[in-house]
Amino acid sequence: MSFTYHIPTRILFGAGTLNALETENLPGKKALIVISAGKSMRKNGYLDRVTSLLTKQGVSYVVFDKILPNPIKAHVMEAADLARKEGCDFIIGLGGGSSIDSAKSIAVMVKNPGDYWDYVGGGTGKGLPTTNGALPVVAITTTAGTGTEADPWTVITQEETHEKIGFGNIHTFPVLSIVDPELMLTVPPELTAYQGFDAFFHSVEGYLATIATPVSDVMALKSIELVAKYLPDAVKDGSNVEARTQVALANTLAGMVESISSCTSEHSMEHALSAYHPEIAHGAGLIMLSEAYHSFFLDKAPERYFDMARAMGETVDGLKPADGAKAFVKGLLKLQKACNVDNLKMSAFGVKLDEIPTLAENTRHAMAGLFKMDPYTLSLDETEQIIKAAYK
Amino acid sequence: MSFTYHIPTRILFGAGTLNALETENLPGKKALIVISAGKSMRKNGYLDRVTSLLTKQGVSYVVFDKILPNPIKAHVMEAADLARKEGCDFIIGLGGGSSIDSAKSIAVMVKNPGDYWDYVGGGTGKGLPTTNGALPVVAITTTAGTGTEADPWTVITQEETHEKIGFGNIHTFPVLSIVDPELMLTVPPELTAYQGFDAFFHSVEGYLATIATPVSDVMALKSIELVAKYLPDAVKDGSNVEARTQVALANTLAGMVESISSCTSEHSMEHALSAYHPEIAHGAGLIMLSEAYHSFFLDKAPERYFDMARAMGETVDGLKPADGAKAFVKGLLKLQKACNVDNLKMSAFGVKLDEIPTLAENTRHAMAGLFKMDPYTLSLDETEQIIKAAYK
Ligand SMILES: [Zn+2]
Ligand SMILES: [Zn+2]
Repeated sequence: MSFTYHIPTRILFGAGTLNALETENLPGKKALIVISAGKSMRKNGYLDRVTSLLTKQGVSYVVFDKILPNPIKAHVMEAADLARKEGCDFIIGLGGGSSIDSAKSIAVMVKNPGDYWDYVGGGTGKGLPTTNGALPVVAITTTAGTGTEADPWTVITQEETHEKIGFGNIHTFPVLSIVDPELMLTVPPELTAYQGFDAFFHSVEGYLATIATPVSDVMALKSIELVAKYLPDAVKDGSNVEARTQVALANTLAGMVESISSCTSEHSMEHALSAYHPEIAHGAGLIMLSEAYHSFFLDKAPERYFDMARAMGETVDGLKPADGAKAFVKGLLKLQKACNVDNLKMSAFGVKLDEIPTLAENTRHAMAGLFKMDPYTLSLDETEQIIKAAYK
Repeated sequence: MSFTYHIPTRILFGAGTLNALETENLPGKKALIVISAGKSMRKNGYLDRVTSLLTKQGVSYVVFDKILPNPIKAHVMEAADLARKEGCDFIIGLGGGSSIDSAKSIAVMVKNPGDYWDYVGGGTGKGLPTTNGALPVVAITTTAGTGTEADPWTVITQEETHEKIGFGNIHTFPVLSIVDPELMLTVPPELTAYQGFDAFFHSVEGYLATIATPVSDVMALKSIELVAKYLPDAVKDGSNVEARTQVALANTLAGMVESISSCTSEHSMEHALSAYHPEIAHGAGLIMLSEAYHSFFLDKAPERYFDMARAMGETVDGLKPADGAKAFVKGLLKLQKACNVDNLKMSAFGVKLDEIPTLAENTRHAMAGLFKMDPYTLSLDETEQIIKAAYK
């Protein structure tokens, strides 16, 4: 048992913690604030709150507001140019995973020359070292999904090549993350469910991954327990601060799990899906793949599934590992139903059956690394077979 | 539920990880290596291994080898002078908690003027801010006890005033910690037990503390589980790498718990005891206090004790919280017996019954802060009463 634990991010968690932005040490004097192209950051008043708290600290800012739900490389490059031109010395990602991930990638490109894809490892990325590090990043999360506030990862799509690839290193951990569940109360039910399931699968995959450690394990199981217990309530009543808080905690824990363990090939498959069909929300893609994926893996790691079924509140005591493992899929389907996401169909998103070989091929190319984290090594055939089994 | 999570230390955990010292980025070019006045670091070859790994990196070093089991302020000041004179730019603490704690305090005093007690908060300490921060600290731990490799705390005794006080801030987290259980195989059984119980009580108190969070909770329960399961094996057969590894993990987790939760007044009482009787090992002091202390607190936080009893492997399912709580003390005594530390007596260490009022008074003075972490606020009378009940 050998592992490295390193999560240098300072995380402020809890309702009302956004106000700490007035007094926290910030890593610079001029911020590039990165937000999505949608209206919510302005409409909900979050951008105003952030800028006025910054102003009280004497920190100036520029806003970049073009980030798409599946953020693209072109915006990373454009925002990095803007930050350089404006002399920004740190980046604030405000919003969901796409804004915070973009903030990380922008922070890298402000300090390093060339193209972002020069630094991405995997796919057509050149995997060059980010020799100059990155500007410091502050993450202020308004959703509970990607866990990006507690990990170094950023997922950006290269539009031309349909590659959606994760990237990150010690420089892309946020230096400060603020997780204030009060900023999450306005997330609509469907998105709440998608994001909550994303967090859920980060913990599930992090528990299954071959590099899981006892530290990631305790965080993963707690996170799985909290999603199973509170996500349905957060979906049903978005203004339930208690449920929002517990799901936010599950998500932050899931981010920590991702920092020290890893996702598995389930994420490779989803990235292929949403790289070709950007209208599929990441969490929705995972949900559609999950029953087939985990049914395939059940007997490859029965004890692990047994533990997760128990964490989800399924009755497994006294069962043999193999039977307890099956309770995980039962719990998964129950949770999908409780969150009204049990009827998602790839076909409804325009995915065609005859695309699946291309998708399977893409997973093995763009996100090949995650296959090495699986408790069983999938062949290309089996990858295709899982996606086909998930197709409705 | 609001909390801050910040443990910036990079922790390398596992058998053989000391060798990483050859390749890890180190925070300077000349180290002050801080070791104890005992012979073990030289006799076991640990100092030689460390210096030769440093030399391979082109890092030079000076050795300070005077640290006592209960480290004292005079050595902190002396070593800081040496580091300044020698131009050291980082400090390596190699050994048990006393060496690593000293390394942290020395790191502060190399960068800040005046006396160490100017910066200590509590007791006669002046609580001044360490405006200049501290030199970076690398911790290489050869025992599994204090958890200091994963927390910012350092406990130093001010000899003249009999004050043994914890201190720490963001600058005193080690930047790098190496936890290599292979370096722990030579710790003698008695010390193994004392140190393992220290880790155990860090987790127990961190679970009881009013500032406990869900993140510290999962780490604390895991740590409690691991000590209960593996400490007896590590005591019985010191060369059992598996048991040493699991106890080391419990200890690192306990350090993380201390970073984000807190000890309680049990530690205040022990600090008083060993400040007046430096021949009492910290862990032994805690063991002698523990039955009386936790019996007193059982009904103040029954659910918490219930959880901890379960983590220790006691059968509590179906019991009411109050009854499950009692199983904690049962488990505690069982564990003491299994580790051959069930017969420790204060009187055998020269503690007199009529000292107890002085000790109780001292706890409320030097380590007053921890009383605020208790699930119930002790009076001076009750403090005395607990120490008296623990006296044999
Ligand atoms: Zn994801
Ligand atoms: Zn202690």
